[in-house]
Amino acid sequence: MKTLHLPAFGKPTVAPELIESPAPEPGPGQVLVALEAAPINPSDLLLIRGWYGHRPSLPAVLGTEGVGRVIAVGQDVDPARTGERVLILPTLNHGTWQDQVAIDERDAIPVDPAADPLQLAMLGVNPVTADLLLRLFVDLPPGAWVGQTGGSSAVGRYVIALARRAGLRTLNVVRRPEVAAELLDAGADAVAVSGPDLGDQLKKALGGERMALLLDPVAGDVVTELAPWLAHGGTIVSYGGMSGGMVSVAPADLIFRDLQVRAFWQKHWLDAAPRDQIVSAYARLAPLVADGTLHAPVAATYPLKQHREALTHASASDRTGKVLFAW
Amino acid sequence: MKTLHLPAFGKPTVAPELIESPAPEPGPGQVLVALEAAPINPSDLLLIRGWYGHRPSLPAVLGTEGVGRVIAVGQDVDPARTGERVLILPTLNHGTWQDQVAIDERDAIPVDPAADPLQLAMLGVNPVTADLLLRLFVDLPPGAWVGQTGGSSAVGRYVIALARRAGLRTLNVVRRPEVAAELLDAGADAVAVSGPDLGDQLKKALGGERMALLLDPVAGDVVTELAPWLAHGGTIVSYGGMSGGMVSVAPADLIFRDLQVRAFWQKHWLDAAPRDQIVSAYARLAPLVADGTLHAPVAATYPLKQHREALTHASASDRTGKVLFAW
Repeated sequence: MKTLHLPAFGKPTVAPELIESPAPEPGPGQVLVALEAAPINPSDLLLIRGWYGHRPSLPAVLGTEGVGRVIAVGQDVDPARTGERVLILPTLNHGTWQDQVAIDERDAIPVDPAADPLQLAMLGVNPVTADLLLRLFVDLPPGAWVGQTGGSSAVGRYVIALARRAGLRTLNVVRRPEVAAELLDAGADAVAVSGPDLGDQLKKALGGERMALLLDPVAGDVVTELAPWLAHGGTIVSYGGMSGGMVSVAPADLIFRDLQVRAFWQKHWLDAAPRDQIVSAYARLAPLVADGTLHAPVAATYPLKQHREALTHASASDRTGKVLFAW
Repeated sequence: MKTLHLPAFGKPTVAPELIESPAPEPGPGQVLVALEAAPINPSDLLLIRGWYGHRPSLPAVLGTEGVGRVIAVGQDVDPARTGERVLILPTLNHGTWQDQVAIDERDAIPVDPAADPLQLAMLGVNPVTADLLLRLFVDLPPGAWVGQTGGSSAVGRYVIALARRAGLRTLNVVRRPEVAAELLDAGADAVAVSGPDLGDQLKKALGGERMALLLDPVAGDVVTELAPWLAHGGTIVSYGGMSGGMVSVAPADLIFRDLQVRAFWQKHWLDAAPRDQIVSAYARLAPLVADGTLHAPVAATYPLKQHREALTHASASDRTGKVLFAW
């Protein structure tokens, strides 16, 4: 079978190599999954370069999340699981950019066999991140304002959908004015465009109100500019650094309005949260993906053997939508 | 009697005016305090400029903290309180830069009549801030490292003394190498000097360990440089902005090591903490000031009528020690 593996950290379009490897056997407590779809996330690109918080020992099998079918089970696993469609938990312990993978059965979450495998394949990381960003940090009453610096990102779009469903309002700051209409159509309550009049736009959007929570995958100046629009006691959650800048907040904003800056990394949550909390998060969200409530645009799918084209496409800054491997 | 009042926000050396005002009468539940000593804190200078988190309605009586003697009591107050030496709680509701002030008796905390009134006058803000910075945010086991960006500040010196007493270790980053010896003599475990080799100094000071808590009254680059030396789950507490810079942390430091940034403002604590917690904080610290365990250098004392000289001296960046008004 084919495996996309990483012999040394480097450029995503150069470093990974497709190799022929023996088909795995499911060990005790394991299931063998034949992949159907596996996304390329920004975190995968960072990991390939060696810049991610998790640096695997090399050579490593790549790919964080995906869906597939159980095609065999190991000892102590109910044989009835054979044929199940499962989501592979993004624990960073098993590579999904290969034809088959043997994983602990508890890392294989059953999902709807009739739903779109591409959408299900994207459930593991981004929708769960969006859900947890809205749940873990601030107790948000209905109508509360949630700000986003990355409203047009994949996570940002899931946040918009989940916030709307929960009766929250989102204020989304974007760099490109042309995405504003799209986000408003998707359920955003307000969109503001970075620029010298950002303050005026924020004032108008919020009326006399303030944000309770600011979700930030961008960092840099936009965080500094948004911090004054957080309510007393408000929280900024950093979960990415797309701009290459720092998370910078004026001491007066922090001190006089008792703001706090927190951080979210899904790996910490998967490592630390009780198993039933993890299973229930996926159980809550999988039907929303299956019924189309949670939907992310797909830029393109590629077979594994076109990994250089796929990783080039996934690295493009003007891409709209996710690039996935599909089988 | 004389009152230093503020008719309009402006430069500390220009805006305040000394006026003659009628001696106050203590109302029901109040005591009348004749001031003995009242410090000039950096926060007073910000308040005079209108840059502080609290902007009083004008004209305002200035001065946040101080000690004095009870010289009269109002209705419903035990007459035995007359003659007590008291610390005036820094609630920002009563000015201490005047000969006498009438305050609620619960804002007048009895302190040692035999101790140095200058040291006691500085207890209200800085030692309590230092104590709370070490207590409110992180549960610090003995031997834990506490970092400071303002080790040579008044609060920083109290932190060093209180940390040593609690079996904690302090790592103090300073700009001027000449204060290092002084801080080490005062009980600092390590002192590092800002500069291109700061990272090497931090590495050497910490050995293989990391800081659990970083206390920051400075902001700017030093915070960015220190953040990588915090332990997983570590906390940065912002309580000032002496450099004029932002509190800036790399997203990777926040996210991959689950750091958090919090803030401390004593006014929030005085407004929100249960009264017994406030009284017990002062009760715990006042004897340490009286016995000399907590001691801050005094740069000079001035009578109220020399307020321009006093405020000029307090504004000087090369000052070492506190400037106080004394009667």
